[in-house]
Amino acid sequence: MTTNKAGKQQLSNAFDFDKGMTALDDDERALVERRKRILGTMGPLFYDRPVHIVRGQAAHLFDASGNDYLDCYNNVACVGHANPRVREAVNDQLGRQDTHSRYLQDEILDYGERLLHSFPDALDRVNFTNSGSESNDLALRMARVYTGHQGVVVTAHAYHGITSLVSSISPSFGTGVPLAPFLATVEVADVLTSKQPESQVRATLKQRFEDAFQKLHDGGFGVSAVLLDQIFSSDGILPGATGWVGDIAQAVHRAGGILIADEVQSGFARTGEAFWGFQRHHADADMVTTGKPMANGIPTGAVIYKHKIGEAFASCTRYFNTFGGNPVSMRAAGAVLDEIEERHLLSHAQKIGEELSAQLLQLLGGTPRFRGIRHAGLFLGIDIGSSDSTSSDPMAARAIISKLRDMFILISSSGPDGSTLKLRPPLVFSSSDVDRFMKACSTLVDEGYFG
Amino acid sequence: MTTNKAGKQQLSNAFDFDKGMTALDDDERALVERRKRILGTMGPLFYDRPVHIVRGQAAHLFDASGNDYLDCYNNVACVGHANPRVREAVNDQLGRQDTHSRYLQDEILDYGERLLHSFPDALDRVNFTNSGSESNDLALRMARVYTGHQGVVVTAHAYHGITSLVSSISPSFGTGVPLAPFLATVEVADVLTSKQPESQVRATLKQRFEDAFQKLHDGGFGVSAVLLDQIFSSDGILPGATGWVGDIAQAVHRAGGILIADEVQSGFARTGEAFWGFQRHHADADMVTTGKPMANGIPTGAVIYKHKIGEAFASCTRYFNTFGGNPVSMRAAGAVLDEIEERHLLSHAQKIGEELSAQLLQLLGGTPRFRGIRHAGLFLGIDIGSSDSTSSDPMAARAIISKLRDMFILISSSGPDGSTLKLRPPLVFSSSDVDRFMKACSTLVDEGYFG
Repeated sequence: MTTNKAGKQQLSNAFDFDKGMTALDDDERALVERRKRILGTMGPLFYDRPVHIVRGQAAHLFDASGNDYLDCYNNVACVGHANPRVREAVNDQLGRQDTHSRYLQDEILDYGERLLHSFPDALDRVNFTNSGSESNDLALRMARVYTGHQGVVVTAHAYHGITSLVSSISPSFGTGVPLAPFLATVEVADVLTSKQPESQVRATLKQRFEDAFQKLHDGGFGVSAVLLDQIFSSDGILPGATGWVGDIAQAVHRAGGILIADEVQSGFARTGEAFWGFQRHHADADMVTTGKPMANGIPTGAVIYKHKIGEAFASCTRYFNTFGGNPVSMRAAGAVLDEIEERHLLSHAQKIGEELSAQLLQLLGGTPRFRGIRHAGLFLGIDIGSSDSTSSDPMAARAIISKLRDMFILISSSGPDGSTLKLRPPLVFSSSDVDRFMKACSTLVDEGYFG
Repeated sequence: MTTNKAGKQQLSNAFDFDKGMTALDDDERALVERRKRILGTMGPLFYDRPVHIVRGQAAHLFDASGNDYLDCYNNVACVGHANPRVREAVNDQLGRQDTHSRYLQDEILDYGERLLHSFPDALDRVNFTNSGSESNDLALRMARVYTGHQGVVVTAHAYHGITSLVSSISPSFGTGVPLAPFLATVEVADVLTSKQPESQVRATLKQRFEDAFQKLHDGGFGVSAVLLDQIFSSDGILPGATGWVGDIAQAVHRAGGILIADEVQSGFARTGEAFWGFQRHHADADMVTTGKPMANGIPTGAVIYKHKIGEAFASCTRYFNTFGGNPVSMRAAGAVLDEIEERHLLSHAQKIGEELSAQLLQLLGGTPRFRGIRHAGLFLGIDIGSSDSTSSDPMAARAIISKLRDMFILISSSGPDGSTLKLRPPLVFSSSDVDRFMKACSTLVDEGYFG
C-alpha cells in the first residue's frame, strides 16, 4: 500500500486514474475512460495496464483477444471460473423460485444444516447475508448485544470490510477512514514473522491482547469482541505459530468478550489443513463469518454462532436480510460444497500449496530480494525486499506483479506496505498450473526482478 | 407492529416461535422445529401457519401440495417469479465468468450506463453493492465525507436496512435497537394522511424538517443527509401530496446537507407514474439507493450519485465491494430492465394499480373498519380500523392477512402499528390476478372481516 497526502491508502498495484492514461493504447484508454464516466474513480482497478476479462475456466481467465491468464489470485471462484456444477444448480433453482426466508423453504435449511456440519458442535446456528462485510457487521452487532460491551480488538493492519462500522475497525484503509474510538489494535506481524520459539510468540501475543483489553476497559468500552482474519491476509499473510488464536479466545472470554473468526478469506478449505482457519489454531470461536468463496461468485455470506448469542439478539430485535439465504445463493453454495468434497479440494489445497511453496523456496531462496515465504494450503505470501534485502520494497513487488501480468499471470500483493506477494488461486489450481507459474517466475529471476 | 417488554417490534403477522407451535399440524411443526434448530429465531417468519414455498411463476407461488398462492406482496421478483429471461441471462453469464470490478469488464459498464440513462443527467455515477442495506450504508458514508457533517434526518417510522449504521437510523425497529445520537426524526404520516390543502401540507412538512436541521446544528452534528424512502412504506405507505420532497431537497441543501432518495421499495417502475419515486416529487436528489427488485432476486444493489460526491469520497478512501457489480448480477439486472421496457411494466403498474385501488375503494369504502386507501402504481395501503373506525386496529389487519393466507393469497401490513394492509405485488400482476384478489376480498367482506 502507499499513502497519499489525504491519508488514503492505495492498493499497491492499483491503476492511477490521474497519471495512468498515457501508458494505455487507444482501445484500453477508451475503455478506462468509459469506466470513469460510469463508475467514477471510487473503485480501484488493478495494474498499470488493466486487464479486460471476458471469459474464464478453472484457474484461467481470458481477455477479449483470447489471451489465457493464469489466475493465481482469485479466491471467489474457489471451485473454478464458470464452474458447470454451480451453473447447473443456479439454473435449476431459477426455474423454480427465488424468494425470501419469511416463508419456509427447503433450500436454506438443507444448505444451512450442511454448513453447520462443517463446524464444531457448539457453533450451532447460522444466519445468511450477502457479503463478508454484512457478515462482520452483523457479527459485531450480535457480539455487542450479547456481551453488553462496545469495545472491539483487531490486528494492526486488519481489513474486515466496507460498511460504516467495519470500515471504522479496518486500519488497512489508512487515516482517510477514521478509526472508531472503541477500537484497540494489536501488532502481530513482527512476532509472527520472527524466529522466536513458539511458546514465546504465544506469550507475547497473549500479553498484547490483554493490554488491548485493559485499554478498552479503561476507556469505559469494555470488550465485546476480538475479530481476527484467520490467515491475517492484510497484515502480511501470517499462517504460522498455530495455536496462538486459541490463547486469545481464552483471554477474551475472561475479559467478558467473544472471539469472532473472520473466515472470509481463510475459510472453505483454503488453508489446507482444516476446512476453517480457526480450526488450525484450535480456537474456541464463538462466531464465524464467511463471504467471498461461499457460492463461487453469487453474492452470499453467513454468520455462524453459538445459539445463546443469537437468542440474546433475538430478544431485543429481529434480523431479516431480504436476499440473505435466498434459494439461488443456497443452491450455488451447495454446489460449491459438492465440488470441494467430491474433488477433495481440502487435501488438494494442502498438496498443491506445499508443492508451490517448496518450488518457490527452491527457486527464490537464494535471490537478493527474497525475504521469506509463508503459506497455509493455497494461500501464500512472499516478502520482497530491497536489493540488499535489508528492508521491504513495495515498488519491487509492484514491478514483479506488473511483469507477471504482461506474461498473463495474475497475482497481487498484501501486507502493511504492499511488499508481500499474495498468491491465493482458485482451489482447483493444478500441478500444470504450478508448472506454468514456476516457469514464469524462473524467467523473472533470470531477468533480475528478484535482484 | 407490536412491541414486547424489551422494546422489540414484531412484524404484525409474524409467527410466534414461543406460542405458535401448538397451532401447527405435525408436518408443519417438524419443518418449523427444523428451522429453529438451524436458523434460530432471529429471522422472522410470516403467518400463524407459515407458508412453505417450493415453486413460482409470474405473480404466483406454489407450496409442496401444489396450492397456488396469489402473490400480492413480493416486489423482489418484480418481473415475475422464475422469470425465463432473467434465468437465461444468468445462465449465459455463468457459462462465461463472474469475477470482480478490479478487472475491466463489459457487463458492469453496459448495465451501469443503461441504469444511469434512467436518471436525470446530474445523477451521473453509480457504484454497485449487494443489497439495499449496503447501498444506504455507503450513501451515508459518502454524504458525511462530502458534507463534512454527521447528522441524519429520517421519518419517524423509517426503515432503511440492517447494517449497524442504517439500523441505528431506522426507528421502525423499536427501542430494542438504540437510535444514533446524530439522528433527528420527523413525523410525516399525520400530515400526509390529513385532508389539509396541499400547500399547507407542504409548508408544515418543510417547517418540521427545518426544525430537525436546527436540532442537529444545535447538537453540533450538522446535517449530512435527509434519507427518505420515496413511498414511505414503513410510515404507512404515503404516496400523496407529490412535490413536498422537492421542498425538502431545497431545504437540506440550504442546511449544508444532501438528499438521498431511498428507492429500494419505490424504484424500478413500482410507483407507476415515473421510473423512480423521487421523480414523482420533482425532487433534486443528490444520491439514490436501490436494492430489492433490481435483479429479480439475485443480490444486487446500487448507489447512484452526483459525481462531485464520489470525487470527495475517492480523495480520502476507496470503495471496493467484492461482489458489487459482478457480471451475473449485472446480466440479471439487465434482463429486468429488458422486461420492464418491453412489457411496458411502468404503464402497466399505473393501470393495474388504478384498477385495483378503484375496485377496493368501491368494495370496502362503506365497510365499518375501512379507514382509507392510498396508492401509487402497484404499491397500495389500506388502513384498517376498530369496528367503529375511530381508531386503527392492527389485530383486525392481522386477521384479514391470516384469512387471506388461508385462501392462498399473500399480503402483509405496514405502518407504525401494523394496521395498514400492504399490497406490493410483482409488477406483472394481471387483470385476472386483480379479479381473484377482489373475489377473495368480497368473501372477507361477507364474512365480516371489515366489520
